[in-house]
Amino acid sequence: MEKSHENEQPVKAFGWAARDTSGVLSPFNFSRRVTGEKDVQFKVMYCGICHSDLHQLKNEWSNSKYPMVPGHEVVGVVTEVGSKVDKFKIGDKVGVGCLVGSCRKCENCDNDLENYCPDQIMTYNGIYSDRTTTYGGYSDIMVTDEHYVVHWPENLPMEAAPLLCAGITTYSPLKYFGLDKPGMHIGVVGLGGLGHMAVKFAKAFGTKVTVISTSLSKKDEAIERLGADSFLVSRDPDQMQAAAGSLDGIIDTVSAIHPLLPLINLLKTHGKLVMVGAPEKPLELPVFPLLFGRKLVAGSAIGGIKETQEMVDFAAKHNITPDVEVVPMDYVNTALERLLKSDVKYRFVLDIGNTLNKC
Amino acid sequence: MEKSHENEQPVKAFGWAARDTSGVLSPFNFSRRVTGEKDVQFKVMYCGICHSDLHQLKNEWSNSKYPMVPGHEVVGVVTEVGSKVDKFKIGDKVGVGCLVGSCRKCENCDNDLENYCPDQIMTYNGIYSDRTTTYGGYSDIMVTDEHYVVHWPENLPMEAAPLLCAGITTYSPLKYFGLDKPGMHIGVVGLGGLGHMAVKFAKAFGTKVTVISTSLSKKDEAIERLGADSFLVSRDPDQMQAAAGSLDGIIDTVSAIHPLLPLINLLKTHGKLVMVGAPEKPLELPVFPLLFGRKLVAGSAIGGIKETQEMVDFAAKHNITPDVEVVPMDYVNTALERLLKSDVKYRFVLDIGNTLNKC
Repeated sequence: MEKSHENEQPVKAFGWAARDTSGVLSPFNFSRRVTGEKDVQFKVMYCGICHSDLHQLKNEWSNSKYPMVPGHEVVGVVTEVGSKVDKFKIGDKVGVGCLVGSCRKCENCDNDLENYCPDQIMTYNGIYSDRTTTYGGYSDIMVTDEHYVVHWPENLPMEAAPLLCAGITTYSPLKYFGLDKPGMHIGVVGLGGLGHMAVKFAKAFGTKVTVISTSLSKKDEAIERLGADSFLVSRDPDQMQAAAGSLDGIIDTVSAIHPLLPLINLLKTHGKLVMVGAPEKPLELPVFPLLFGRKLVAGSAIGGIKETQEMVDFAAKHNITPDVEVVPMDYVNTALERLLKSDVKYRFVLDIGNTLNKC
Repeated sequence: MEKSHENEQPVKAFGWAARDTSGVLSPFNFSRRVTGEKDVQFKVMYCGICHSDLHQLKNEWSNSKYPMVPGHEVVGVVTEVGSKVDKFKIGDKVGVGCLVGSCRKCENCDNDLENYCPDQIMTYNGIYSDRTTTYGGYSDIMVTDEHYVVHWPENLPMEAAPLLCAGITTYSPLKYFGLDKPGMHIGVVGLGGLGHMAVKFAKAFGTKVTVISTSLSKKDEAIERLGADSFLVSRDPDQMQAAAGSLDGIIDTVSAIHPLLPLINLLKTHGKLVMVGAPEKPLELPVFPLLFGRKLVAGSAIGGIKETQEMVDFAAKHNITPDVEVVPMDYVNTALERLLKSDVKYRFVLDIGNTLNKC
């Protein structure tokens, strides 16, 4: 007999789910597994709303499973630990990001790069090793293998949950590509959930930061609110020409189709253009400008668990938090509509702990 | 009064030049500067024919100046040195590659990356600091600033002149991108002048080498003649799928428009696809496959002078030479026609020393 999503597991859980491609969320009774020997069960306190939630809720990546409980920027407090858990105890503050599983056997997993494991299991809309569908953080409790759980530093507000996706997505490439050296000059393209974190981390590393945007409207924000050093309007050829050859690296957070040539031209010799947004269609890559300056275009996706822990510790030490608008659970559909219009600075965070009322 | 190319400088010289976009070469009397205090004058013995000579002879890059004496893979013997030359003496064997000048002041020059200096001066079809046009190695003598001259190792045949362009173009990215570690698995796309050198250097570094080509016809060549370990037909999806995720890096020597996705799919996590060919139009860059594996696409162009010296020393030590067909000077137009049809294994070299007869 096929098990229903509502009761296939022994532990009752409650959250909000989308039932179809309309993407509209509504209250949802479901179930979680019993805390296994390596599992941590925790009460969800806050969960960020990521732009990728929008895509998946509406099946825009053609792999959505319904009902879907989204949420992969999850912070909570441990309520139960398995018999073989050694990293956590009841009462610990913890975080879970985009991943809740991987093969633990491949070269990527061996190198703490679970995020590039071909058998990685996403926090929601994934299939777990027990063949159940994974449900994310828009819910009252989660049960997660301790390997994929990070310690949430005491002095880091729990509302800073978007560090677990937007934070690590920008921190990881800045580190891996060596764009974290004081005195370097880093560009950030796009000033949304990812872009504003890139600015904050790049500044914390001691680099000079230039925000690159299609319109002048974000200039004050970028410089006065986020601490960027300068601002370039990408549609102004004179400004772009004047800045040619000035950047050591660029974190490009834009998911829309956009030209790469003006960005490549901003790079110094050996400069690095790193894409963290994911345009659905191929972009045009001019090769000559890469050759003359030995420049590169790369991609990067979230980060491994070890690096995610390093990132939240770094954020706590340097007082780096995302700018968030904390909203109650029943505001989620409005928040999603506003997110679609980029009407948020810069991330919505659901106050699950205080506002998720069981129906 | 405007000086003619034939006699603007005091020292008589002789070579072969193209007079117009037909690209046909014919004997040409011209002149060179007096050996300056930092200059080396040398008798040209051998000069390789590079594929880029074809493009420039026919003005395909829209910047050709006529008459044009091509040649930037030049090996010869020193005949005169300036009063302040300290690296060379009369009788030394020397080599000159693609560059004869740069600004010596910029960050690139400071870092031994004259090849990325924005004011670099090309060995031919360039404008020298004295405003004269530069003439290349299809000629009897050259006069070159010692900074841009390398020592040619005693045990390296002078016919190995193509090391100075084809060699450094492939050696430099293998080193810079860390694709020179024993045990790595390197792909080489295209088996021409550049590709066959990439195979030889990659093998000398102790890596496993797979040649990737559009047709099976080069398989025996690649494996039996050049020592590659395996061969992939890029148009065979099954072969390409079976090799997915197997390469640490790829040197892509192809200048024609070609799809990058099948190559990106061959890379492991953190794999590097380095373009050394220069397609004239942009290529399609799919971004998702870069993100999931933190892969990169880069370009690289020749190398700096210090690294060019290192490369010829490495070649001498490891007996690495290009496979060449040595031809007399008056065969040059036939050689260019054959090169256009890829009818050479793998580089023509002009025997200037023995066959350039003055008219």
